[in-house]
Amino acid sequence: MTSERFAALPKPPYYAVIFSSQRNAHGEADYHAAADALFAIVQDQPGFLGVESTRDGDGFGITVAYFDSEENIRRWRNEATHAATRERGKREWYEHFEVRVAKVERAYGGPHNEAVAATADPATAAPAAG
Amino acid sequence: MTSERFAALPKPPYYAVIFSSQRNAHGEADYHAAADALFAIVQDQPGFLGVESTRDGDGFGITVAYFDSEENIRRWRNEATHAATRERGKREWYEHFEVRVAKVERAYGGPHNEAVAATADPATAAPAAG
Repeated sequence: MTSERFAALPKPPYYAVIFSSQRNAHGEADYHAAADALFAIVQDQPGFLGVESTRDGDGFGITVAYFDSEENIRRWRNEATHAATRERGKREWYEHFEVRVAKVERAYGGPHNEAVAATADPATAAPAAG
Repeated sequence: MTSERFAALPKPPYYAVIFSSQRNAHGEADYHAAADALFAIVQDQPGFLGVESTRDGDGFGITVAYFDSEENIRRWRNEATHAATRERGKREWYEHFEVRVAKVERAYGGPHNEAVAATADPATAAPAAG
């Protein structure tokens, strides 16, 4: 179950879109339906590598989507459903958000004690690179 | 209240340490005490720019800490309390974690409708750069 929350990524370099957002108190059902729809669509986007996302009980969330290139980030930004949903989000669902686009230069995972190593997914349990 | 959750960052470039983690079910009080202590210490670290963090009810969390340089990320990595707490976390608190270190190349925030713009913090409501 845990592994489903982590993106299984290739070795760097690749790109991260870090989206931090504060939800308002409105439209919970619509918001979730739209988020689920985008999640399904992004899987087929060129260069999409994976996504990790979480939001706490106060409505503050962080989603990090990973792509292979800046070009494919722009392509996803211009995808029709994504663009329409983003505009709706600005109008209806977010009190505030911040986006940072970054180039991932190194990555590592853990822990690497025996109990975990025995059941770890090799794709996400890469050795420390830094 | 919202603005407290968002890091007020300078213009890119700067660096992000993206820490995704799945908590286990143990040591909640100790974990929170250690996290609070690290949060206090990091504020005085050279080159620390800000941090955003959230964790959902299933224990999956994402913390993104921002620094001005790779050198200061390494310095924070080697800070004594941080290093000791990190080792304790690996042993006691995390089912799994992933770390990605990335260079932020562009950033923007929103929404920019009138109602929000009137109260937005100029430091976090930078115009779209991409």
